[in-house]
Amino acid sequence: MADPDELGTRSLASLAVASAWIDRVAAPLPAERVPLDRAGDRVLAADTGTLLAIPPHVRAACDGFAVRAAASIGAGAYNPLSLKAIPVAAGEPMPEGTDAVVPFDRAECEAGEISVIEPVAAAENVEPEGGVAAAGAVLVRAGTRLAARHVGLLSAAEIGDVAVVCRPRVAIVVAAPQRVVGAGSDGPMIRAAVERDGGVVTGEIPAPRNRAAIAAALAQAAADIVLVIGGTGSGPDDHAAAALAQAGELALHGVALSPGETSGLGRTGSGVPVVLLPGPPAACLWSYELFAGRVIRRRGGRSPELPYRLCQKVTARKIVSAIGLTEICPIRLDVLVGTVEPLPGFAETGLRAASEGDGFAIIAEASEGCPQGAAIGVYLYD
Amino acid sequence: MADPDELGTRSLASLAVASAWIDRVAAPLPAERVPLDRAGDRVLAADTGTLLAIPPHVRAACDGFAVRAAASIGAGAYNPLSLKAIPVAAGEPMPEGTDAVVPFDRAECEAGEISVIEPVAAAENVEPEGGVAAAGAVLVRAGTRLAARHVGLLSAAEIGDVAVVCRPRVAIVVAAPQRVVGAGSDGPMIRAAVERDGGVVTGEIPAPRNRAAIAAALAQAAADIVLVIGGTGSGPDDHAAAALAQAGELALHGVALSPGETSGLGRTGSGVPVVLLPGPPAACLWSYELFAGRVIRRRGGRSPELPYRLCQKVTARKIVSAIGLTEICPIRLDVLVGTVEPLPGFAETGLRAASEGDGFAIIAEASEGCPQGAAIGVYLYD
Repeated sequence: MADPDELGTRSLASLAVASAWIDRVAAPLPAERVPLDRAGDRVLAADTGTLLAIPPHVRAACDGFAVRAAASIGAGAYNPLSLKAIPVAAGEPMPEGTDAVVPFDRAECEAGEISVIEPVAAAENVEPEGGVAAAGAVLVRAGTRLAARHVGLLSAAEIGDVAVVCRPRVAIVVAAPQRVVGAGSDGPMIRAAVERDGGVVTGEIPAPRNRAAIAAALAQAAADIVLVIGGTGSGPDDHAAAALAQAGELALHGVALSPGETSGLGRTGSGVPVVLLPGPPAACLWSYELFAGRVIRRRGGRSPELPYRLCQKVTARKIVSAIGLTEICPIRLDVLVGTVEPLPGFAETGLRAASEGDGFAIIAEASEGCPQGAAIGVYLYD
Repeated sequence: MADPDELGTRSLASLAVASAWIDRVAAPLPAERVPLDRAGDRVLAADTGTLLAIPPHVRAACDGFAVRAAASIGAGAYNPLSLKAIPVAAGEPMPEGTDAVVPFDRAECEAGEISVIEPVAAAENVEPEGGVAAAGAVLVRAGTRLAARHVGLLSAAEIGDVAVVCRPRVAIVVAAPQRVVGAGSDGPMIRAAVERDGGVVTGEIPAPRNRAAIAAALAQAAADIVLVIGGTGSGPDDHAAAALAQAGELALHGVALSPGETSGLGRTGSGVPVVLLPGPPAACLWSYELFAGRVIRRRGGRSPELPYRLCQKVTARKIVSAIGLTEICPIRLDVLVGTVEPLPGFAETGLRAASEGDGFAIIAEASEGCPQGAAIGVYLYD
C-alpha cells in the first residue's frame, strides 16, 4: 500500500503496473435482462441462440405466385405451359404442393393459373426451413456489443429480451480548488467520456478540499466505480490520496505518465474501485482515458483497450520524449502521404493539443521518442 | 412522380439517383442550446470560441514554490542560494513578483525560503496567459461531433452551454403483415440503428395494411423523418407506396439495390422526408443504412456517409454480382493476410450474413463483381 504523503519523494508506478492492478480489480458486472428494443449498443452477457429454426418453415423469399416447379418442365417460347398459381407475400409459408415462386412482375395470372415460357427451377425464390439458422443455433456470442444487425437477427428469432452486462454506475466526487478559474469544470468532460464508454453517471458530489470530507464522500458513494476529480497533487490542500487511504485502500498514487502523473488508484471500504483524477484538464482527460475508462470498460464487459483506432504510421519528424515517463504525444496525420508529425504537447497547449490534432501516440516509458521515418503505433480520433 | 402501381414493370432507380434525392431533400435541422454536460456526442452547430484568454492569467503549471528566477542566478552545488518561496497549487495565478515554480519535491521550505543549488529558468512550470488560446479564438468548429476532449476544452473556457444541431425525431409506421412469423419485428433493429445515427424514435405507430390507414398514419406523424416498415412489395396487400402517394409525394419506389429493391422515398404533405423500408429483415436493414440512415445523419448534422470504416482490401476469391443491381456483399476479413472473401449472401442466410461477417462490400450497379486479387473498398464493422 502506498503512503499518501510520499508522492514525489518515491518512484512513480509504471503505466503497466497501474493497468495490471485495474485488470485484477475491475471485474465485469453481472447481467440484467432488457427488452430487445432497448438492447442496442449493450454488451450481450451470454451466448444467445434460437429455439426455433429461422425460418421456422419453408417460405416465400419474394412476393409472387407459388407454383410446383415440376409442372413447368418442357415449357418454352413455342410451348407455353399453364401452371396452378397461388399468390404469396414474401415471408409467407409456401402453400401445400408448391416449391417455387414466380415474382408477380414475371407473369400474369388468369383464373388461378399463370403461363410460363421457360421452366421454373425448384426452390427458386424459396427460403428453406432453417436456412438462416437451425433450431438451437447460437445467433450472437456473449461479449458482442449489439449493433442493429444483431438486434434484427435476434428479433427475427422472436427473442423479446436479452441478458446484457449492467451499465457501470459512476459516482464523481469533485474536490477541485475554489480559487482556480475553470477548475471543477472537468465534470462535463468526464461525463461525456463516461457515456462514451457505456457508463452512467449517478451523481456529482462536490466535496470541500479536506481529507475528512473527501473520505466521507467516498464512503457514501453507491456506485460501481468512484472517480475523484482534483486534490491529487502534492500541495497543502491536496487530500484525495490521504482520504482514499482513510476510506479504504490507496493502491498506488503517482504514475509515470504525462499528462496524468498525479493519478491514483484504490478501493473504497466496500471494495469499489476508485480512480483519482488530477484536476488540470489535460491530465484529467488522460488519467480518465488510461485508468478510469479502463475500469468502466472492463466492468461494462467492453474491451479494456482505448476506444480509438490503433494503426501504424511513419513519423515525418522526430518525436522527443522523456525517458522514465510514458508520454502522450498529440499528432497530426498527413492523410495524403500517410505520415504523422508531433504537435505542441499538452504541457504547452493543454486540451487544445487534443482537440486540434488527429490522434496521439503513446511513447513508452523506456523510450526517448522516435526518429524521423520510424514506424509507430498511433491512435486516431476518426 | 412515380406511379405506385408500376413497381416491377418499370426500371428501378439507381442507388446514385436515390442518394441524390436524399441529399437534395434532407436539410440539417436547426440548432438548440444544451448545457455542456449534456453535449457529449452532439454536433456543434456554430464555431464556438472563447471570450477569455485561456489561461486568463499567468498561472502555475504544477504544485510547488513560486519564486523569482533571477534571484537564483549563480546558484550551484558550492553556492546554494536562498529564495523567497510562496507555495502555489497548479492552476493558481502566479503571485506578484514571481515567474517560475519549483515543484514541492525538489526543495524544502523553511521560514518562507527555499535553498537552490542550480539556477531556476524563468517561466519554468508556468503557463503564460493565453497559452492554450488567445481571447476570441475559435476553440471548436461547427460540425464537430463533440468528444470528451472538446467538451473539456469548452469547459475550461467557462462555456456553460453550446448550440448543437437538434437530434432528428423519427416516427416509425409499422405496416408489416400479420401472417408472417417474425414480421413486424424489424422495430428493435431500426430503433438501434436510429439511436446509433443520433436520432430519437418518437413513436412506433402500428398501421393495418391498407392504403387509407397507412396514409392516415403518415399524415399524423409529427417528426423530422418518417419510416414505414413493410408493405413495400408488389403483393396485393402492399400499400405503403400508394399510401405515401396519397398522403404527400412518392418520389421513387423501387431501387436497383439488393437487398432492398422495394425501398421507396418521398415526403408527407407537410414536406417531411419519408423512407419506405421493406419488411424482410436484411432488406429492411440495408434500406435503412443507405436511405433512412442517410436522411437521419444529414438532418442531424453528421456526415451522410455510412458509419462504417471504409478501407481498401484485396479479394482472396472472386466476388460475383448481378449487373444492373448494386449488391451488398458480406465479407470476411483475414486479419493476418489482409484479404477479404465473400460470405454466403443475404438472400441465402438473411441477417446472419451481416452478424457473422466482418463487414461488407458495395458492388456497383455497372459491375459483374471483381476477380480474385483485385483491390476493392470494403466497409468494416470494427
